[in-house]
Amino acid sequence: MPRKGLLIVHTGNGKGKTTAALGLACRMLGHGKRVAIVQFIKGSWRYGELDMRERYAGLLDFHVMGKGFTFKSEDRDADVQAAKEAWTLAETVINEGEHALIVLDELTYLVQLGMVEEETILRALLKRPPELHIIVTGRDASCALIEQADLVTEMKEIKHPLKAGIKAQKGIEF
Amino acid sequence: MPRKGLLIVHTGNGKGKTTAALGLACRMLGHGKRVAIVQFIKGSWRYGELDMRERYAGLLDFHVMGKGFTFKSEDRDADVQAAKEAWTLAETVINEGEHALIVLDELTYLVQLGMVEEETILRALLKRPPELHIIVTGRDASCALIEQADLVTEMKEIKHPLKAGIKAQKGIEF
Repeated sequence: MPRKGLLIVHTGNGKGKTTAALGLACRMLGHGKRVAIVQFIKGSWRYGELDMRERYAGLLDFHVMGKGFTFKSEDRDADVQAAKEAWTLAETVINEGEHALIVLDELTYLVQLGMVEEETILRALLKRPPELHIIVTGRDASCALIEQADLVTEMKEIKHPLKAGIKAQKGIEF
Repeated sequence: MPRKGLLIVHTGNGKGKTTAALGLACRMLGHGKRVAIVQFIKGSWRYGELDMRERYAGLLDFHVMGKGFTFKSEDRDADVQAAKEAWTLAETVINEGEHALIVLDELTYLVQLGMVEEETILRALLKRPPELHIIVTGRDASCALIEQADLVTEMKEIKHPLKAGIKAQKGIEF
């Protein structure tokens, strides 16, 4: 079967990488298609997103990696182990072929921090079920990932309120 | 009351401007807050989004401007009239102060096409209820709008599948 599913990358230093993935998830769910979201950074998803699980019960699978690494841990071995387990779960969800769209949220960090070999990830993405769309989010997407992707958007920060001393807002930042 | 609501702008030639606004809407709705979406370009929202109306019934107000201009009309006067009416509705929704977030989808085109005076729009945004967050989407946001905004992200196209001859996909493009 020829490949129809797109590999989409949201990268850059601006807001909107995860949020735009969330919007695409809503759109796909609105078509009655199943979506899975795998979160690789502990705590990067908040109440607003978690509410979606209830709204779209039966269609949306949310894998919040409770043991996901946090950048803050002082136990590198444990972090690497947690990252590898998260990736293994993602690979399983990809290969199951039960979803129309899978969001791999903040996946790029696993590569940047040397937690998972990029070659392993790229190979898994390449041999995904042909109809499956995948969105990878995270800063500093590698050239190899961009090369393999079908659609790449850079979210570029032009102006940010936290730099102007405005506090994070409920519903906007979290 | 000091202003807490942010003016957010999603601009640039890439994907994700409207989609990221949709994601922020989901996040806000997930907090149980009311959201309004005003669409200024006819037909730019599709089935996936319209399904959200049912999922978030009672919280989400969707103003799809049925008479919104389409860039294709040959009746400029009718287009200008429709655009002005759409803007008047948006202004009413803003002033009502019943929402936590209002998305003004593709608003920038009204200014670019000379349909509504930018000064009128900027003044209305400035005197909005202090807690109201507004997201403006659309290409080529003006310097004046960026100047007034609190958070600006440029969605920049790095790679696009339609240029590589891949067809638009249900749930992704619409």
